[in-house]
Amino acid sequence: MSGAGELHHIVIIGGGFGGLNAAKELKHAPVHLTLIDRRNLHLFQPLLYQVATGGLSPGDIAAPLRVVLRSNKSARIYMAEVTGIDKEKKQVQTDQKVIGYDSLIVAAGSVNHYFGHDEWRPFAPGLKSIEEALDIRKRILTSFERAEMTDDENLRRELLTFVIVGGGPTGVELAGSVAEIANHTIRKDYRNFDPGSAKILLIEGVDRLLPAFPPDLSAACEKMLNELGVDVMTGTFVTSINGHEVRLKKENQESTLKTQCVLWGAGIKASPLGKMIAGTNEKLLDKSGRVFVEKDMSVPGYPEVFVIGDLANYPYQTGEPLPGLAPVAMQQGRHVAKLILARLKNKTIKPFKYIDKGTLATIGRSRAVGTVWKFKFKGFIAWFLWLTIHLRYITGHQNRILVLIQWAWNYFTWARVARVITNVYEHPPDDYSKVK
Amino acid sequence: MSGAGELHHIVIIGGGFGGLNAAKELKHAPVHLTLIDRRNLHLFQPLLYQVATGGLSPGDIAAPLRVVLRSNKSARIYMAEVTGIDKEKKQVQTDQKVIGYDSLIVAAGSVNHYFGHDEWRPFAPGLKSIEEALDIRKRILTSFERAEMTDDENLRRELLTFVIVGGGPTGVELAGSVAEIANHTIRKDYRNFDPGSAKILLIEGVDRLLPAFPPDLSAACEKMLNELGVDVMTGTFVTSINGHEVRLKKENQESTLKTQCVLWGAGIKASPLGKMIAGTNEKLLDKSGRVFVEKDMSVPGYPEVFVIGDLANYPYQTGEPLPGLAPVAMQQGRHVAKLILARLKNKTIKPFKYIDKGTLATIGRSRAVGTVWKFKFKGFIAWFLWLTIHLRYITGHQNRILVLIQWAWNYFTWARVARVITNVYEHPPDDYSKVK
Repeated sequence: MSGAGELHHIVIIGGGFGGLNAAKELKHAPVHLTLIDRRNLHLFQPLLYQVATGGLSPGDIAAPLRVVLRSNKSARIYMAEVTGIDKEKKQVQTDQKVIGYDSLIVAAGSVNHYFGHDEWRPFAPGLKSIEEALDIRKRILTSFERAEMTDDENLRRELLTFVIVGGGPTGVELAGSVAEIANHTIRKDYRNFDPGSAKILLIEGVDRLLPAFPPDLSAACEKMLNELGVDVMTGTFVTSINGHEVRLKKENQESTLKTQCVLWGAGIKASPLGKMIAGTNEKLLDKSGRVFVEKDMSVPGYPEVFVIGDLANYPYQTGEPLPGLAPVAMQQGRHVAKLILARLKNKTIKPFKYIDKGTLATIGRSRAVGTVWKFKFKGFIAWFLWLTIHLRYITGHQNRILVLIQWAWNYFTWARVARVITNVYEHPPDDYSKVK
Repeated sequence: MSGAGELHHIVIIGGGFGGLNAAKELKHAPVHLTLIDRRNLHLFQPLLYQVATGGLSPGDIAAPLRVVLRSNKSARIYMAEVTGIDKEKKQVQTDQKVIGYDSLIVAAGSVNHYFGHDEWRPFAPGLKSIEEALDIRKRILTSFERAEMTDDENLRRELLTFVIVGGGPTGVELAGSVAEIANHTIRKDYRNFDPGSAKILLIEGVDRLLPAFPPDLSAACEKMLNELGVDVMTGTFVTSINGHEVRLKKENQESTLKTQCVLWGAGIKASPLGKMIAGTNEKLLDKSGRVFVEKDMSVPGYPEVFVIGDLANYPYQTGEPLPGLAPVAMQQGRHVAKLILARLKNKTIKPFKYIDKGTLATIGRSRAVGTVWKFKFKGFIAWFLWLTIHLRYITGHQNRILVLIQWAWNYFTWARVARVITNVYEHPPDDYSKVK
């Protein structure tokens, strides 16, 4: 127990929605708290696609964990990579030091999943981190820049073909944004071609977009994407991605698309920390790598170790695992924090119940679909709800102001402020000599 | 002449202050214009140190070149790397295509200079690009994070020692900002040490800071830095940097400082494009690699090739090369554009004369020194002038609003919005699997 003194020491792994909400709940509690994350920031992931498409800057949607938890004087925050969990010794191993715990909350989230095709990763970045968002931004904007330079019409068509894999919220948001960029934001900025001629394809394996939404909203979403100029291909699977083309399969028809820009929104799997928790007990994990937890979110046999959010498989409420959404993680984080505090007083609390307030997916300017408190919304009203809810939940007053101003500006001018390509040098220190 | 038709084709290399001002001057002229830059953005370099120290985000101080020049319908913008200049064939070679010209303006600026010690580069990043600014930010913030983790007091002292090399405006700005971060912004954010105990050293080879300023302002600058907690060492040379220590020499005294964070503001040299212009004629370059230009900024023997800004050695006005400042580049850019247009009408214009409106260097909150129209200023008034002038000159209305809001917020809260460490993965595509 490092520096925990006599107080009960709670260690939280992960500063995402789950971990941060657990930490906030413990703010004034008489416990010793340690939050471990490999980043120094809480990322507001629902707006990450706007960083990827140049609407916002990374700093706008990230809040330093130390600032968020500043008023919690007992909280220690360690920026470190977790390398192991010893449930017997009650210790978390990191790349920098070993940290003992009395209670452990693991909220390490999920990573991109390429379904056994990790070789696609370099050609089809996913959207889980700031770095990936900036990589996607670079790929989209660089495609247009290279299309302006080339005299080869075939290459230009290839450069102006954008393929987004996965028809869930991330894929829909990316496809809608790329269409708006091509048809509006940069429409008048090139001399050698019309950005409006760009081909934007959204590929989904099942027979409709947003499979987690009601079917009529899926249909509305597809219609709105079509209006924006996105070609939607449902019931279609990707069989190969190699940096120059994508191979597709629909029923038994195979086809090939020439493209250099593929974005991956097709799948996620649980963080590798799931395996560290399971150890040799492989049955503890489902096939996505999530940990089967008890009804109180603890790990079977280890009542002091809790797993929440995307990393947990919690089947007790619906028979299915709860969805990998921010509200699930937030509610679980608060619940587990309360549970630990109750146990310290030998009390009990009501069992966990996820309250589903609904979900919204945004497609573009004035276009969204979703349900709020079981009511279905689509079009402008859904989009307005989406805006309001996201502004309400983003962490940090300043982030809220900056996002609001940039949204307003982008809305009225069709501009995208953060249309700057960064991370040009993949290996910065060696390449400084090239900097002008 | 690629796509130039019958119009006179002016090619500008570099979208910095010089190139962009030349392009703006040509906005409504009956010429064909091509601007080549390896980036898609104009960077407002005077505020780059604020990106490096977490006060602003990259998007706030960068404007897409296509947006800045949007109203110039004849302008082509190419994002490409210049690989050669053929003055005989009147062609610019790039990594993507060859571009012919009738007139050429080379405004490629300067790069970091390690005075023959390129092996220091990986341990002491300079401040010329967005990537370097984010690298510096990462190094500063990571030092504090690692100091929180370690139990080794010697390592902690090493991590809390920051060395800034070079007492010009960049070094002064960086040293003042790091001191403010340690003593104010993050003062209450760590539990295992007091950030105020950080040691910040500013090293300058000559006997005073800001050698380009009047001596009494140098003295005022040193006093203000001392108040902020910066140790200033003048008359001191760096003899070695290796990632764990810096060796210094003052007169004949040698000393060693244990530190892992060294920032380089000591020197710049001309862009390698100088050599491309000179070709085999080495006498055309001064020892910093700048091109000795004619009185009209043209290259001797090539009246249609102009060199402006940091890349030009223009000794005609003061006997010395004009200083490497944004106003020099801007005035030269506008002058050369006017000269080319006059020549097309067989007219002449008045010879170039640099109008020195003065320079300001900021040291920190409410602290700056400088001259404006020959009047000397220091302290709050200098700082207020600095703020006003930089807000006035930053490109893009939205950038102006965003910078103003963030400055106001940072001023009243002592916060630094953009305190987020990005670019964690040096080789992103391989490391995605580690993302939580």
